[in-house]
Amino acid sequence: MKIVIDMMGGDNGLKATIPGVKEFIKQHPEIEAYCIGSEVLDEEFKNYNNVKVVHSNKVLKMDVDPMTAFRTLDSSLMVATNTYLDNKCDALISAGSSGALLTASIFKIKRINGVIRPGFITSFPTVKKGKKFVVCDVGANNANTKEELVQFAKMGTLYYKFLYGEDNPRVYLLSNGTEEEKGSPLTKEAFKLLKDDKTINFLGNTEGRDALFGDLDVLVCDGFSGNVFLKAIEGTAKAMSQMMKEAFTRNIFTKLGYLMTKKGIKEMKDKMDYKNVGGAMLVGIDGIVIKAHGNSDGKTFLSALNVAYTLGQKNIVEQFKKALK
Amino acid sequence: MKIVIDMMGGDNGLKATIPGVKEFIKQHPEIEAYCIGSEVLDEEFKNYNNVKVVHSNKVLKMDVDPMTAFRTLDSSLMVATNTYLDNKCDALISAGSSGALLTASIFKIKRINGVIRPGFITSFPTVKKGKKFVVCDVGANNANTKEELVQFAKMGTLYYKFLYGEDNPRVYLLSNGTEEEKGSPLTKEAFKLLKDDKTINFLGNTEGRDALFGDLDVLVCDGFSGNVFLKAIEGTAKAMSQMMKEAFTRNIFTKLGYLMTKKGIKEMKDKMDYKNVGGAMLVGIDGIVIKAHGNSDGKTFLSALNVAYTLGQKNIVEQFKKALK
Repeated sequence: MKIVIDMMGGDNGLKATIPGVKEFIKQHPEIEAYCIGSEVLDEEFKNYNNVKVVHSNKVLKMDVDPMTAFRTLDSSLMVATNTYLDNKCDALISAGSSGALLTASIFKIKRINGVIRPGFITSFPTVKKGKKFVVCDVGANNANTKEELVQFAKMGTLYYKFLYGEDNPRVYLLSNGTEEEKGSPLTKEAFKLLKDDKTINFLGNTEGRDALFGDLDVLVCDGFSGNVFLKAIEGTAKAMSQMMKEAFTRNIFTKLGYLMTKKGIKEMKDKMDYKNVGGAMLVGIDGIVIKAHGNSDGKTFLSALNVAYTLGQKNIVEQFKKALK
Repeated sequence: MKIVIDMMGGDNGLKATIPGVKEFIKQHPEIEAYCIGSEVLDEEFKNYNNVKVVHSNKVLKMDVDPMTAFRTLDSSLMVATNTYLDNKCDALISAGSSGALLTASIFKIKRINGVIRPGFITSFPTVKKGKKFVVCDVGANNANTKEELVQFAKMGTLYYKFLYGEDNPRVYLLSNGTEEEKGSPLTKEAFKLLKDDKTINFLGNTEGRDALFGDLDVLVCDGFSGNVFLKAIEGTAKAMSQMMKEAFTRNIFTKLGYLMTKKGIKEMKDKMDYKNVGGAMLVGIDGIVIKAHGNSDGKTFLSALNVAYTLGQKNIVEQFKKALK
């Protein structure tokens, strides 16, 4: 498996990507990695036979305009994209601007035949042990059509099936109520199409509230709502972890109490920490393109690399192409 | 202060409203309450001089179509609405269908002059002690225009000012990124209007993630996104509380640990529990109309009643009317 890594993207740049990649290669020594970035990388990876360093001169800002990004050919992202194409690689990963990654992917790597708009898909934890659900789109688009929502449902179904081995994943539409007549003008239209599509196990509307309890597999939404959903979950989990910390450090008794419950509390915090959720795949692109969290540290970036690895092992793009034909 | 209470609405009906109202009257014996519902109430409130029971025959379903609701004149909601008008009351409260309450309010109690669409506004906790922020609209509408978003910002500003005594509340627009150019087609248009409005202290876009950390006062959004935001926070808080419980009940040591940290953990859970958040006010209506959580228990319903009480004490509707002139 050949993987191309934009080492410069994200808020923390090399500070996150170097430790992430080193640990990743330790875990999977058979990987061939192309690391794109500054000359610092030569020294860092000189003893790694399976790492090729490719130099880039510029780093795109997180808020770069996508077309400017696309024209900045010596940026780490564009060098990465070209390296991906020139070497017929399996996966491309970046923690940089989502918009830039999306534009580069659509115009250079291209969409799978028939796909209208790609969407970001990512896995979320639930209260049930080991059980996850996926959400598509969590933010590749800022507006979608009903037909795009139906494609997200199809691609979400396939993704869930391939990743978690569930034959007939339960698909729900994110809405402002569970009844059929609830929803925005867009979701109401999409509801009708989803209900009529026999290839999707569509079970109706859901409110975001229930999703974390494990009773659904695929949550479909437009990119704007999906992004609001994702950020609200992240923010709440982070806020509660901070409050928990305060509750545990009040006095000697609470500190002692913490020592006694540490293991379970840590497991729970880890589960809800977006740093462990890994990356979002850009589904609908003819290749494995992974967006790592913009705020990635080494651990987050490693988990995004592992998402790319797992999807590569499952040959997910070929499966998508076959199923979407 | 005269308050009208739909005793039959909500998933739990009388089981929630009776204990809620009894405790409320204990806290505020000067209140005059009209309790609308079945004959059971006669017995329940026979010793309460300041409670008038008004009978209704029907209970609207939570998923009732708003126009059907409006035509069901002997439903507890419609009897409540008419009682409100006939007795020139100060507040109306229901845990029943939001859509039905919205329709009854718009067509019977009417909007404040100049208001295009009312919106639900509610307070959220933050990690900072005592600090709250408000979100408008959390679900009165399933689609909004840019002009409506500007009104939500204005009404949100006034609400925050009156309720928390903050002179110049910081207003943000809920978006999929913090940069000006981020957003849905709707929020991009609203951004321009908000920036130009000198009556609003508008500070730009925000992602839902940051809101719970206390650095904003008023979060503006369309009703669909606001509802997704609200439900995602509720769901995550509930899921984490459940996981915490599991972590504390693993063995004798974790149980002991819980005993030592109980106070702080309980405070935190209470803070994040929507049962204590109280009701959402339907701002823009010419009266205090409060929607209690559909899933209210006695405690939740009490806190919604207390929201109505506080807003009545502050004479909020007159203040709104003066400011929106």
